[in-house]
Amino acid sequence: MSPSLSIPRRIRSTPFRFFNEAQGVKAYTVYNHMLLPTVFHSVEDDYWHLKEHVQIWDVACERQVEIAGPDAARLIQWMTPRDLRNAAPLQCLYAPLTDERGGMVNDPIVIKLDPERYWLSIADSDVLLWAKGLALGGGFDVTICEPDVWPLAVQGPKSDALLEQVFGREVRDIRFFRCKWMSFRDHPLLIARSGWSKQGGFEIYVDDKALGTTLIAALLEAGQSLNVRGGCPNAIERIEGGLLSYGNDMTLLENPLECGLDKYCHIGGDLDFLGRDALAKIKAEGVRRKIVGLKFSSDSIPACSDAWPVSRAGEPIGEVTSAAVSPLFKCGIAFAMLARGHWQEGHTVTVATPEGPREAAVSRLPFTGNGTGQ
Amino acid sequence: MSPSLSIPRRIRSTPFRFFNEAQGVKAYTVYNHMLLPTVFHSVEDDYWHLKEHVQIWDVACERQVEIAGPDAARLIQWMTPRDLRNAAPLQCLYAPLTDERGGMVNDPIVIKLDPERYWLSIADSDVLLWAKGLALGGGFDVTICEPDVWPLAVQGPKSDALLEQVFGREVRDIRFFRCKWMSFRDHPLLIARSGWSKQGGFEIYVDDKALGTTLIAALLEAGQSLNVRGGCPNAIERIEGGLLSYGNDMTLLENPLECGLDKYCHIGGDLDFLGRDALAKIKAEGVRRKIVGLKFSSDSIPACSDAWPVSRAGEPIGEVTSAAVSPLFKCGIAFAMLARGHWQEGHTVTVATPEGPREAAVSRLPFTGNGTGQ
Repeated sequence: MSPSLSIPRRIRSTPFRFFNEAQGVKAYTVYNHMLLPTVFHSVEDDYWHLKEHVQIWDVACERQVEIAGPDAARLIQWMTPRDLRNAAPLQCLYAPLTDERGGMVNDPIVIKLDPERYWLSIADSDVLLWAKGLALGGGFDVTICEPDVWPLAVQGPKSDALLEQVFGREVRDIRFFRCKWMSFRDHPLLIARSGWSKQGGFEIYVDDKALGTTLIAALLEAGQSLNVRGGCPNAIERIEGGLLSYGNDMTLLENPLECGLDKYCHIGGDLDFLGRDALAKIKAEGVRRKIVGLKFSSDSIPACSDAWPVSRAGEPIGEVTSAAVSPLFKCGIAFAMLARGHWQEGHTVTVATPEGPREAAVSRLPFTGNGTGQ
Repeated sequence: MSPSLSIPRRIRSTPFRFFNEAQGVKAYTVYNHMLLPTVFHSVEDDYWHLKEHVQIWDVACERQVEIAGPDAARLIQWMTPRDLRNAAPLQCLYAPLTDERGGMVNDPIVIKLDPERYWLSIADSDVLLWAKGLALGGGFDVTICEPDVWPLAVQGPKSDALLEQVFGREVRDIRFFRCKWMSFRDHPLLIARSGWSKQGGFEIYVDDKALGTTLIAALLEAGQSLNVRGGCPNAIERIEGGLLSYGNDMTLLENPLECGLDKYCHIGGDLDFLGRDALAKIKAEGVRRKIVGLKFSSDSIPACSDAWPVSRAGEPIGEVTSAAVSPLFKCGIAFAMLARGHWQEGHTVTVATPEGPREAAVSRLPFTGNGTGQ
């Protein structure tokens, strides 16, 4: 049974709360000091709907940190091991942010609006303060703010069909992880083909509250025949899909190499960034722990709201960071940070859940197979 | 009706959650990415109990940011307009943190553990990232971390009586906003006479989870005759007492002079800090808005979870930031940020609440009087 959530002004509402409530939101969480819906019908019902139809998500909590000015590109490049030097305008770049030890500060999508103006669409930590601190300390010539932008996501296999009706045929031409300025009621809106599911879809960067209300009404109207409804990032779908979550699966205590984000880290070249030496050393020595998948031998696992210890033959080898019961694989699945020597696919481990020990097998990420642990 | 709260691992539990649940916690909020209880019996029942007896509060969410090293004092002084140059060891100093424009980043209690080691006991924003950013950018020779410390508060008029039974007579000698290392089961614990109520009490900086469990058991046992129970910062008591809350009543968009924190700001002297020039200019020109109290003409006001517009004779003059119904004054009370020209005690204003307009009178802070608006 979930406890109630007290919502003082400190926990910021969103312009779309009326919509969540009209759609019967059952629970929220708090993300970037802001409300984020987590359940509408039930997590499993929401999951099936997301995989078959199309949903409108209030992800206003994906705050934008705008960094602008002559030193904007230099500051942002200092903040991430991702090589942004050849970033194209209106490209979305997933970029782990690291501190001096290589620990993860956040994992935003960076959008280059123009050569001197960027948005970082952030996960749950105060990147505004981090970026401002670095800039003030280091004397960068930038201005940094959190603009009034509230992303609205449209996710699910019918997303293209829905957005075409509202924005026209050309919305289909937006490539994966690219943005385009589209017009709605004569107001330009940035639309990206992105979003926190593996079901396809878009994120619309709404910068006008009243227009957001009009947009939602238009999407609901256009989507009637597509079985559109309100939704939210889905705890099952994102684990099945291998989407890590900052704060859950990675924190300041983990580095991007431990989180399997090697391909976003330009280490050992001529790129300079915070944590470069630390990450180079870690890469040379090999990581001592890494995130892997786990498939449980049953579907009997409790809700995961804390790290669950993982052992093998009695020896502690790591912990589960997120878990869910997968309708696709018909068993519990999890992400686990495990020590070196224990990453071999199929190896059996024991997870100490609050409801007792559970057997699980190490799996590659993203998960594959048919639910029998294969 | 409060919605349910979803608690993934990203929202950190506390070592004292078992205690909150044993005491019948009814609601939580999220503070520093961590659970903070908000209601046990009811907000009003909790209020009366706090004012008459003694409560044990899980305020583990008051995270400590430790700044240590040769440049620690210089970095912390750069972060705040409060003059810390004569800070005594183990003194608690309330210190607004400001950015380059004088906007408030947080309002921690600074404790000088030794000349090269400080704790900032923070409100709800990522001061760890802010301080690390400033230090890395500016090349300060410091180490910054969030130690494993979970404050436990004991608040209420019987706090001295309770702590004396557990820690001995000398706990009574701790002066207001001073700390002392005391022993519990041969383990040193830092205890401060402080806490987020006006009812008196202590904060115990627990640095060992198991010991925290033992300590709670000892406090419950010793407090039986004192009517001790679990509690939490109380939304009514803190407004009656004039305690502002970061995120609710002040944010990065407000400066400490607007929040009535002038006495914590050493402006115009030889002290250098972030925002010094901005605050000097604001002080010279006079603030354009300021936090005042409001007393409503009735006790019929709804729960406040968003800013409520305030007007006078149809002219918008500001907004309510927090509100509650006061059993002491027998009416609604609030904090409101109002424009210059509207701070005169007794002036009548109109507040647009979600349940309709309400009349209120401007009041000094902290509130005084007997509930008739006098």
